[in-house]
Amino acid sequence: MLAEIITIGDEILIGQIVDTNSAWMAKQLNLIGMKVKQISSVSDDAAHIIEALQQAEKRADVILITGGLGPTKDDITKLTLARYFDMGFRRDEETLQHVTDIFARLNRPMIDLNRKQADVPDRCTVIKNQNGTAPCMWFKEHGKIYVSMPGVPFEMMYLMEEEIIPRLKKAFQLPAIFHKTILTANIGESFLATEIETIEDQLPPHIKLAYLPRLGQVRLRLSGTGTDEKLLHEEVESYAQQIITRISKYVVAEEDIALEKALLDQMKKRKLTLSTAESCTGGYIAHLITQHAGSSAVYMGGGVTYSNELKMSVLGVKAETLTQFGAVSEETVREMAAGAKKHFNTDYAVAVSGIAGPDGGTPEKPVGTVWIAVANRYRVVTRLCVFGNKRAQNIERSAIAALSMILNELRQDED
Amino acid sequence: MLAEIITIGDEILIGQIVDTNSAWMAKQLNLIGMKVKQISSVSDDAAHIIEALQQAEKRADVILITGGLGPTKDDITKLTLARYFDMGFRRDEETLQHVTDIFARLNRPMIDLNRKQADVPDRCTVIKNQNGTAPCMWFKEHGKIYVSMPGVPFEMMYLMEEEIIPRLKKAFQLPAIFHKTILTANIGESFLATEIETIEDQLPPHIKLAYLPRLGQVRLRLSGTGTDEKLLHEEVESYAQQIITRISKYVVAEEDIALEKALLDQMKKRKLTLSTAESCTGGYIAHLITQHAGSSAVYMGGGVTYSNELKMSVLGVKAETLTQFGAVSEETVREMAAGAKKHFNTDYAVAVSGIAGPDGGTPEKPVGTVWIAVANRYRVVTRLCVFGNKRAQNIERSAIAALSMILNELRQDED
Repeated sequence: MLAEIITIGDEILIGQIVDTNSAWMAKQLNLIGMKVKQISSVSDDAAHIIEALQQAEKRADVILITGGLGPTKDDITKLTLARYFDMGFRRDEETLQHVTDIFARLNRPMIDLNRKQADVPDRCTVIKNQNGTAPCMWFKEHGKIYVSMPGVPFEMMYLMEEEIIPRLKKAFQLPAIFHKTILTANIGESFLATEIETIEDQLPPHIKLAYLPRLGQVRLRLSGTGTDEKLLHEEVESYAQQIITRISKYVVAEEDIALEKALLDQMKKRKLTLSTAESCTGGYIAHLITQHAGSSAVYMGGGVTYSNELKMSVLGVKAETLTQFGAVSEETVREMAAGAKKHFNTDYAVAVSGIAGPDGGTPEKPVGTVWIAVANRYRVVTRLCVFGNKRAQNIERSAIAALSMILNELRQDED
Repeated sequence: MLAEIITIGDEILIGQIVDTNSAWMAKQLNLIGMKVKQISSVSDDAAHIIEALQQAEKRADVILITGGLGPTKDDITKLTLARYFDMGFRRDEETLQHVTDIFARLNRPMIDLNRKQADVPDRCTVIKNQNGTAPCMWFKEHGKIYVSMPGVPFEMMYLMEEEIIPRLKKAFQLPAIFHKTILTANIGESFLATEIETIEDQLPPHIKLAYLPRLGQVRLRLSGTGTDEKLLHEEVESYAQQIITRISKYVVAEEDIALEKALLDQMKKRKLTLSTAESCTGGYIAHLITQHAGSSAVYMGGGVTYSNELKMSVLGVKAETLTQFGAVSEETVREMAAGAKKHFNTDYAVAVSGIAGPDGGTPEKPVGTVWIAVANRYRVVTRLCVFGNKRAQNIERSAIAALSMILNELRQDED
């Protein structure tokens, strides 16, 4: 079963935004056993959109379209689809009500442009977009399925997860697919490969193992395809357990979750609390943690101590330490972690101080120099990382390294 | 002059990596007045690649191809291009020397597979890839230009900047192109459209206006195409100024930057400092701000006061306030902002407290209820937002609303 993704909108073609939607959608489709044949980004131009539709329907069974559904003149996806399928328009009352409700809730007056969001091509099935005013439209035409979704990522994601994927599973006879992901940290990809080589060599052809490395963490994904769902499930699980047993000290989760979610789950189970003291990561670790529902059971809060003044007043770092060793030093980060643990009254505290760049480096402490400390009831451990010269990457790598360090301490603490 | 980008490789189609190359390339092409008509990602499959080439050459003058140039069997771009243009192969001695040098430098033995990197289709011009072993190939066939580049981002970027862009400029008489972006906040897309309708209707056909809305901020982009660069620049600027004058109270930047960057720029110019006190946004505002280089000139830091204890100990929120009104209340958020301003010793402080969800809502304070306060030397202003039930979205919307509120106060402060 083949799918294609068509992204509509000039903002991708002029390079203003990176198309992250398509990769996400491709991943979801692959998970249900639907291969993506092509991803095309085309302009807000009717003739061009129609050409893309014609070509996609020759190659694929399902065509997923994102973008071009806004209320303004430059958004022409809906009009173009109606023209392509030779349909008139009808007003969808449920959508009108939904749009009206949204405007009422936001306490904003509604204008004709907004009402037009409820006008849809005759023969499409409207799927309610919980998170926005543009409705999602499902077409069954030319013997294929077409779905038009808004390009706003969270609107599209919600629709894909809650509506489109379940409907596609129903519409097609898809083979059983079972994925099992093992999240590892504190070990590199090639070391991991050597460790589990003998298990990998025994895998039958219908079970594949993928290494998905990303910034200091490696996900191992076993994917099995078959006809008997239950049998397949058992078979994949049995290989997964062999792998988990072999590399147990690097396994942080037996499911496809984020590293910080694995951390939250472990700490919650053990009723431990956590606080953060961030300098160069600037709140990114706190953000990673608090994006997860229920994080407040573990995470009490923290300080984003960008200035030296705040390192002193919020965390109790000594002025002499900052003067003698500098803000980016083992001594400072150690006091930051200990201070956070004490002042925020938590079982664990993590602190990060570094030079994210692009400026601020010196010969002794070049851009990318990052100190991390983790404090718990037993000790404060520190680690020096030397990353590269890209600010965003340094922030992300520091955060991942900090989370991995806490996970490592949790394991020590358990032993 | 039109270009197309074809990305070859299964890793994009299975959603393993996000195609960031294409947006970057599109931006570079746009800067020299070359419009990108379509971006296509296709699989490592000869027939599919050929189909993509055939379609692209019908629409565009230049076809830029990335990926599929590795030494292994699954990389078939070079073979496919030779087949498509009906060419034999020749060994390029300069490339062979380059590959040999690289292996010598890495102190690795070279095998036949590596030597094959130097075999190129007869009639192509080889462009040296300074950063890797796969040569870049320039074809002039079927009356069009085709360029095949490696997919590794820094190899491609170097080739584009140093070789391809200069050659394209030489090869074509390119029109001048000029984009002007206006960033607005605190106004919806359709209101904006109504406000500037009469200006939009007067735009000549060679100047287009696009609305790029995203969570409470809307970017307006004017794009002009012409022959006289200076004239075009003036013309687009003149329409931009008309728009800016008309909607001046919503304009936060006259360039294409992030909302928080606009805020940092304004505050830096006025030598004002900022701190944050975040509950439900959990460090996200701090992260948005600190991802920008130089933010430390304005941003001193802040507290991620997730627990009530931290709201009291770090920000000085009174226990009675929390008991009487709750953590999500106007009173609490007001004390948070005032406390941050005072304890972190900054000119401005912003505080956010809300129920991000999915749990924690009550009939009086449903999920999505968010209080925001901004404190400066004159006053503390507060605002109640009622968003939806999606956690990630509530966090993002709260952050954008908070940033917009600070921008609004900065404007008041100026008047």
